[in-house]
Amino acid sequence: MSKLSTAAKRLLVGRPFRSDKLGHTLLPKRIALPVFASDAMSSVAYAPEEIFLVLSVAGISAYAYTPWIGLAVCVVMAVVVASYRQNVHAYPSGGGDYEVATTNLGPTAGLTVGSALMVDYVLTVAVSISAAASNIGSAVPFVATHKVLFAVAAIALLTAINLRGIRESGTAFALPTYAFIVGMFVMLGWGFFRIYVLGDDVRAVSSGFVLNAEDQHLYGIAFAFLIARAFSSGCAALTGVEAISNGVPAFQKPKSRNAATTLLLLGTFAIVLLMSIIILAQKIGIVYAHDPATQLAGAPEGYQQKTLIAQLAEAVFAGFPVGFYFIAIVTALILVLAANTAFNGFPVLGSILAQDRYLPRQLHTRGDRLAFSNGILFLSGAAIAFVVVFGAEVTKLIQLYIVGVFVSFVLSQTGMIRHWTRHLKSETDPAQRRRMHRSRVINSIGLAMTGAVLVIVLITKFAAGAWIAIVAMISIFLVMKSIRRHYDNVAAELDEQEWDGVLPSRTHSIVLVSKLHMPTMRALAYARATRPDTLEAVTVNVDEPDTRALVREWGKSDVTVPLKVIESPYREITKPILDYVRRVRRDSPRDVVTVFIPEYVVGHWWEQILHNQSALRLKSRLLFQPGVMVTSVPWQLSSSEKARERARRVEPSAAPGATRRGFDAPEGKQ
Amino acid sequence: MSKLSTAAKRLLVGRPFRSDKLGHTLLPKRIALPVFASDAMSSVAYAPEEIFLVLSVAGISAYAYTPWIGLAVCVVMAVVVASYRQNVHAYPSGGGDYEVATTNLGPTAGLTVGSALMVDYVLTVAVSISAAASNIGSAVPFVATHKVLFAVAAIALLTAINLRGIRESGTAFALPTYAFIVGMFVMLGWGFFRIYVLGDDVRAVSSGFVLNAEDQHLYGIAFAFLIARAFSSGCAALTGVEAISNGVPAFQKPKSRNAATTLLLLGTFAIVLLMSIIILAQKIGIVYAHDPATQLAGAPEGYQQKTLIAQLAEAVFAGFPVGFYFIAIVTALILVLAANTAFNGFPVLGSILAQDRYLPRQLHTRGDRLAFSNGILFLSGAAIAFVVVFGAEVTKLIQLYIVGVFVSFVLSQTGMIRHWTRHLKSETDPAQRRRMHRSRVINSIGLAMTGAVLVIVLITKFAAGAWIAIVAMISIFLVMKSIRRHYDNVAAELDEQEWDGVLPSRTHSIVLVSKLHMPTMRALAYARATRPDTLEAVTVNVDEPDTRALVREWGKSDVTVPLKVIESPYREITKPILDYVRRVRRDSPRDVVTVFIPEYVVGHWWEQILHNQSALRLKSRLLFQPGVMVTSVPWQLSSSEKARERARRVEPSAAPGATRRGFDAPEGKQ
Repeated sequence: MSKLSTAAKRLLVGRPFRSDKLGHTLLPKRIALPVFASDAMSSVAYAPEEIFLVLSVAGISAYAYTPWIGLAVCVVMAVVVASYRQNVHAYPSGGGDYEVATTNLGPTAGLTVGSALMVDYVLTVAVSISAAASNIGSAVPFVATHKVLFAVAAIALLTAINLRGIRESGTAFALPTYAFIVGMFVMLGWGFFRIYVLGDDVRAVSSGFVLNAEDQHLYGIAFAFLIARAFSSGCAALTGVEAISNGVPAFQKPKSRNAATTLLLLGTFAIVLLMSIIILAQKIGIVYAHDPATQLAGAPEGYQQKTLIAQLAEAVFAGFPVGFYFIAIVTALILVLAANTAFNGFPVLGSILAQDRYLPRQLHTRGDRLAFSNGILFLSGAAIAFVVVFGAEVTKLIQLYIVGVFVSFVLSQTGMIRHWTRHLKSETDPAQRRRMHRSRVINSIGLAMTGAVLVIVLITKFAAGAWIAIVAMISIFLVMKSIRRHYDNVAAELDEQEWDGVLPSRTHSIVLVSKLHMPTMRALAYARATRPDTLEAVTVNVDEPDTRALVREWGKSDVTVPLKVIESPYREITKPILDYVRRVRRDSPRDVVTVFIPEYVVGHWWEQILHNQSALRLKSRLLFQPGVMVTSVPWQLSSSEKARERARRVEPSAAPGATRRGFDAPEGKQ
Repeated sequence: MSKLSTAAKRLLVGRPFRSDKLGHTLLPKRIALPVFASDAMSSVAYAPEEIFLVLSVAGISAYAYTPWIGLAVCVVMAVVVASYRQNVHAYPSGGGDYEVATTNLGPTAGLTVGSALMVDYVLTVAVSISAAASNIGSAVPFVATHKVLFAVAAIALLTAINLRGIRESGTAFALPTYAFIVGMFVMLGWGFFRIYVLGDDVRAVSSGFVLNAEDQHLYGIAFAFLIARAFSSGCAALTGVEAISNGVPAFQKPKSRNAATTLLLLGTFAIVLLMSIIILAQKIGIVYAHDPATQLAGAPEGYQQKTLIAQLAEAVFAGFPVGFYFIAIVTALILVLAANTAFNGFPVLGSILAQDRYLPRQLHTRGDRLAFSNGILFLSGAAIAFVVVFGAEVTKLIQLYIVGVFVSFVLSQTGMIRHWTRHLKSETDPAQRRRMHRSRVINSIGLAMTGAVLVIVLITKFAAGAWIAIVAMISIFLVMKSIRRHYDNVAAELDEQEWDGVLPSRTHSIVLVSKLHMPTMRALAYARATRPDTLEAVTVNVDEPDTRALVREWGKSDVTVPLKVIESPYREITKPILDYVRRVRRDSPRDVVTVFIPEYVVGHWWEQILHNQSALRLKSRLLFQPGVMVTSVPWQLSSSEKARERARRVEPSAAPGATRRGFDAPEGKQ
């Protein structure tokens, strides 16, 4: 299995890089900002658009509410940033929301956060890549008409890159993130400059269209519901804010302070960008329809609705197409980068959950590339499924997206309140107490705010798709819970038994023989070197002439070990040997039986199919026999040399997520 | 891998039967006939139809040639039957064409026959099931419109039944085969009786239709080519005749004589049926079009062309629908039976080829159900692919079909001529010599005839699809050749090296430890029982606090084996251990190192995912190190008990193809 899948992966992604040296260096703020901000910042690219889109249902007049909804989102953003600044100070270990919830609210809350984050990572990939496809599609019509194909290809490419073991480098992050920030500020600044200083009449292409409300007569509760839905969608801008709380160990000292400062910076950028985009979009009269085909009158034949950012760029940079393309490219880039953070974060989360035995234990060992690979493949498979099912439509995917984030926000804030309350009990220093009280107030406001948003999100989005995310979370929760239960049961089973301290009285060694050749000779020599009380060679008679030839040759050779022939009327191998071993055990139950199996070691998976298959099956069956040890005596065929070389070349390489956990250096920096 | 696939198979096919006892009983002729004849007999159901269909291209007048073409096919059939009667006497071991070709013409010819037969088995399934679908479709229109679906489902069902380990029982074969023979004779007899004795004007439904020739003006070579094509298609009736030569050991004594008699019987039935069908079909004016939609004028709206057999039954049993349905059912049944013979023959052929190391060695051991299962899955996968690609159209599939059969006919006859020539060199008894001369003449005629047919088949069918079968044969040939080359290389590599006879000087044992629990205690006790020269416990420090706790506990316990901690800065497991073992080997290269790995034995494949993954990877890597033995010390968790029980229940069961190789008893008979 593992050999085959490794071969398949190699076919797909080529040979991994050999990273030259693993460093242990820390990130300065100017690098940490892009590393941790791409996820949060990138959501600015689709959140404002979703607000316009939802309101379009009620017609153009509803657009008047966009700045107010944007403001509400910004308030939530500010509160969440303030709250997480408390987290970062209190839990500098990088455990993030999972650690906060587990420590303060118990394992069930922790596991809930874990499940929510796993779903969240999958949706981050799906939403970001779909948004990237829309943005590139705004510049390249071919991509717009083949969005699903493009998105799937992009995810496949990201998967391949991450399987290959790319090292997250700070520089690689810095460039697109800063380019996006600069690009957006230039666009927004130039836009406002043209309007307010030059007095240009900047108009979006869509500003001339007539927007037909899908429902003209929305009043009272129905209208409030629509506003709430628009607000919920806008809250997508908050996703990714929590990322820094997982990355505190990667910061330079003073870690917590630097992390908190970076968080503040990130929040400020996001708020400014979000509000500016909304105001400018309204100013230049962008009409963004929920369903362009039926809602828009006056649009030219075959009108393809471009993203909000693209329409802004088009209008602001009218007559300067380079600007338009630049914005399209950097927006797509930062969205792809945001998706990539999920590829780095997902395996790290898996490793933390595995440490607490909620996932297979092997995922815990960081150096285990194969474990990470499985995580990456799972993530990309799930993301591709979502993209295909929802046709790479950001609007549809976003209905599923925010639930997970806010579940973890709420649990994390609740945990923080408990944290401060607990610490206040023992703290006596008045200055410290004052600070703790203040922090608790901030986290309480955070809880109230995120709790309210979660309720709004649940109400407005449950039927629209949030239920799918919730079902996924519950399923993951239950699977992880039962994995933990399995490990606990095994531990309990092992605890129950008492070791009697008695050693086995004698060892009875059996060497399996099919031919008298070098591997057999080596197995016999090794078996003899373990000085067993009895040693015999055993062969199964599946082919009469072969067996007779073997017995003759054995007699002529100078091998002194007796050869026993086991009959097998139905030409089986496994069962006669099992029966024989069972008989030996029955005759002397206090003995331990060692079965020596000569094995060929080959270099390719397809060679593996041609050898050792019977041995493999036999081995797995022998392990079920109590009191039996199975010893493989390898014989390295020449093709195994190459494989060993290959494996040695591959061995040490960077693990995904290393940079953001402070285990790796940005290339050349520091 | 094997665990997972076993689980998947179990999901699909349920738990296998437990066969109560494997008998070793032989078949009387009355049971042998149906067991071996279903394949050959069933082709009578589609061969005549194909003759009519090909000729329809030249219009109704060409139908005058059908009896002559039928006669030509019957002559070939008679010659082939006579030839194989010689084979059966000369090679009573059941090796069939493969043995004849290998012994007399060398391994390349043998392997060619092997490849041809493999392709043949796949096509037998595809053609028979497609024909069965057409025949049922003639009675049940729904099946006719969903032929591909029906055929795929039928193959899947056959696969499931064979995976489950059904025992081929003589009775199960006898009933449908005799029912088919009786049914056909009754239908044909009653038809001729009505026409010639009662003087009824029996007319087929299609007799009123006007057949538009696709090509009116076929003269000279073009027309001869058409006749040759019709003849080639008719030769499909010969497939399956060779089956008896593989089954001689299953006959009662005198084996060869009984087999030869059965073969004669089979040939007689086939010839009589074939000719009668053609003559009656022509008599009642059946019009069977190559392309009913364009060729038939006068047919009612939505006319679905029924099979030739169905049209015969409809006309002969007019006013007695039971007869019509009976014929449809028994025809479909014998076709399914014919497909099933491939499911039995294919793994047996694989086992013979594996014996000569052309296929993975494990396929050789008959008792190995898993190996057979893989063969069955391969066969059904390939057959389904053919059915889907060719839309379950018998006419299209038959273009691919006959090449393989005739390749093996030709090689087998050539081999037989060599066989007699060789024996004639040493034989002195005149009576024997006369018999041998006669046999050689018969085989020579057989060679001339089958050779001519092969050439005709290649000329008339190459472009129509035979090339696909040829490409498949060549591919299989090359794969098997390279498998053999691999085995030969390995054998040569092993022969080159000389065993120096020197035993390893000392054994250095290493017990891998992750926790101080029962499995570790057992591994330590077992390791000590092998009395190594040095024994140490080794743990990898992937988690500082865990390791510290282990060291503390170790010190407090009464374990006297020293514990060594290996550092692992990147939290890997495999590499540090490999490095350590390498170092030990370097320090004392004459020593042998034994690595003891405590392993959990669990009962379910999903539990396997949660345990031993690191151990598994480590083990496979350790085997690449020269001078290292790897010993698994199993600890059976309670869930393994159930798995052991399960495995024990499954173990002994009948292998496919047992009946026809004389290894199994027809239920209740004998």
